Amino acid sequence: MNCEVISIGDELLIGQTVNTNASWIGSQLNLEGFDVNYGVVISDESTDIIKALKVAERRSDLIIITGGLGPTKDDITKHTLCDYFETELILNKEIEDKIITYFKARGLPILQTNRDQALLPKNCKILNNSKGTASGMWFEKDNKNFISLPGVPYEMKAIMSEEVIPKLRIEYGNGYHLINKTIKTHGMGESFLAEVIKDWEEGLNLDEIKLAYLPSPGIVKLRLTILGFEKEILNQKLNYQIEKLKELIPNQIFGFENDTMESVVGKLLNQVSSTVSTAESCTGGTVAKLLTSISGSSSYFNGSVVTYTNQSKEEILEVDSNVLNTEGAVSQTTVEKMAKKVRSIFHSDFGLATSGIAGPSGGTNDKPVGTVWIAISSNERTISKKLNLGYNRERNIHVSALSVLNLLRLELVKMNLTKSS
Amino acid sequence: MNCEVISIGDELLIGQTVNTNASWIGSQLNLEGFDVNYGVVISDESTDIIKALKVAERRSDLIIITGGLGPTKDDITKHTLCDYFETELILNKEIEDKIITYFKARGLPILQTNRDQALLPKNCKILNNSKGTASGMWFEKDNKNFISLPGVPYEMKAIMSEEVIPKLRIEYGNGYHLINKTIKTHGMGESFLAEVIKDWEEGLNLDEIKLAYLPSPGIVKLRLTILGFEKEILNQKLNYQIEKLKELIPNQIFGFENDTMESVVGKLLNQVSSTVSTAESCTGGTVAKLLTSISGSSSYFNGSVVTYTNQSKEEILEVDSNVLNTEGAVSQTTVEKMAKKVRSIFHSDFGLATSGIAGPSGGTNDKPVGTVWIAISSNERTISKKLNLGYNRERNIHVSALSVLNLLRLELVKMNLTKSS
Repeated sequence: MNCEVISIGDELLIGQTVNTNASWIGSQLNLEGFDVNYGVVISDESTDIIKALKVAERRSDLIIITGGLGPTKDDITKHTLCDYFETELILNKEIEDKIITYFKARGLPILQTNRDQALLPKNCKILNNSKGTASGMWFEKDNKNFISLPGVPYEMKAIMSEEVIPKLRIEYGNGYHLINKTIKTHGMGESFLAEVIKDWEEGLNLDEIKLAYLPSPGIVKLRLTILGFEKEILNQKLNYQIEKLKELIPNQIFGFENDTMESVVGKLLNQVSSTVSTAESCTGGTVAKLLTSISGSSSYFNGSVVTYTNQSKEEILEVDSNVLNTEGAVSQTTVEKMAKKVRSIFHSDFGLATSGIAGPSGGTNDKPVGTVWIAISSNERTISKKLNLGYNRERNIHVSALSVLNLLRLELVKMNLTKSS
Repeated sequence: MNCEVISIGDELLIGQTVNTNASWIGSQLNLEGFDVNYGVVISDESTDIIKALKVAERRSDLIIITGGLGPTKDDITKHTLCDYFETELILNKEIEDKIITYFKARGLPILQTNRDQALLPKNCKILNNSKGTASGMWFEKDNKNFISLPGVPYEMKAIMSEEVIPKLRIEYGNGYHLINKTIKTHGMGESFLAEVIKDWEEGLNLDEIKLAYLPSPGIVKLRLTILGFEKEILNQKLNYQIEKLKELIPNQIFGFENDTMESVVGKLLNQVSSTVSTAESCTGGTVAKLLTSISGSSSYFNGSVVTYTNQSKEEILEVDSNVLNTEGAVSQTTVEKMAKKVRSIFHSDFGLATSGIAGPSGGTNDKPVGTVWIAISSNERTISKKLNLGYNRERNIHVSALSVLNLLRLELVKMNLTKSS
């Protein structure tokens, strides 16, 4: 079934509101195995809505429309749909009672505009809105389905989940499945990665699997998509290819689907009952922030020191002033000492450290902007690595934080292997 | 000028990526006074791209296309545009040199796919990408403008800001102005704020100024919009209203336009030549991360300690173990001691501290999830405040960080007033 999402609202066109509704609807339809082929954003103008409906009717089987169902004057979707489907508004007593109850329960006065939300098109199925007063509407015309939903995200989501998806499953669920799997990698740029996995990528064609590269700072996501009827076989094909990919880039794959570097590291730390603390210079607390963004992180995260001055590196982390004067704050010796010392200060199993030039200023010929040293230290050993990043401060900070977490991840994976072997 | 934004990418249709690019482009065009009438999202299929271009050509004057310009096989936009505009790819030596330099500077190997990014359509203007290797392209056909940009947000933004917008201004700026001013507030919820500024809001109508409330966690942005021909008069009207608003909510307004809480605090710290350090528990390094996200923050930020365990609160910040046992880690005494001690450890003028229950677990009857103590300490005094936030971990962390920075901001504003009086 070909699906199309039409979002109505000037605020979307001028970027005042990001169109998260369309993303969410797309993800839900995709999960059900329906193809989402078009997304359209138009203004709150009757003529634009009519034009978009005409185009959608030609190319799509299911059209989901959001926005313009509120009680105020600029909400014109309901009237426009009546024109398009040549019908009229009639009072729905049941919905009127619901609206009255809704306002009474909240101790709010009911205005005529609120009551008017019970005026609904004669020839559509009414979809119950459990979270508000704007009903959803389902029109059918020549085997095409048009569903109109409010633009308020939690109301739209409630109607989609409680009314639309269950009905779609019954009427159009036909054993046809579209399955996505996302593999998350760190440590290789998009084009270098593409080169390394070139033969594997070609092999995907045989299984009719599509591959998309989705790069973001420090991370390249690989999305595999497969279409077909037998869910189990489709999953088997994807899993087979993922296993092959793991052999090619074992150290680069850090997770799947909604995994993040920090969630993966957190799980691994819990598995080996280890704790961590960080000593940060150029990342300025970002590694700590990432680690503590995970609920339950207090079981493995002990704390951090952000040493932004040389004085604090000396006094708190006992970096030798000679080292700071000769090798500098951005050096292997400094970052290794930072990692070792923060481990002991916080009595943790692992110490992580970062020191670099995030930019845009502060670079030298020897150490240009983007030069970053990272280190991890355990009671067994201390490992450090030099990164050569680019010129964007935000990106440098973020990629440095991911890189030091990845260094820890690789160490934890080894520990897990040793433990289980 | 009628504008249309075409976003290419399956990941957008199936909701794997939220289409923030289209929002951002819409907002930039809107700021320049151009009408944005259509947004279209399509898959990475040549036929869909061609169809969308045909429709756009009929109804829009300026068509901005994002996505599909990467070096990998699934990036087909460049080839499709060549078909559509009946042209061919030729090697652009200048761009090839740039790409080689880009990779050399990062010490990375150059692959053929990277070099191929210098193959560009013959009959388009090349738009320089200062942040990456995928050039932008500007085609003209029958007085219609087609601009193709990469989908990577920071690359797209760089080309838009540095190349597209300046050219559009020169060629299509027509004396008509739409001016937006954004006022940023912290400390009052949206509906409470609306009640406080109700009369002022009504007064805006007289000047034909539109007001939009744009709430996000811990911040409500107020956007004023005015339309007209004489820029100076429009600006005067907006500034007059902003001055009136300042009288109504002097402590809530922390900045304008692109100001962030951390950039404002940074400027104020520089003005009074003061330094700051933070002791964080529930915010886990977020305050430090915000402060150090600002380039040049090393002139006022000395460092931080994230004490996630009671032991580290005792050992590093000398919080009395009796206090931790009786009053708890989330208490006024604890957070004030943290602020005082971190100030002395880092020899800074101000110490900030946070301690609370970010959730979702860890709440008690006395101290439910969302209970947070914040404090700031200087050589003159220590101030603390209790926040009662909600149940969302991410939001609690972010709002706590903003709140403690705002506490510092108000103190710095007072110092500045004293200095200048």
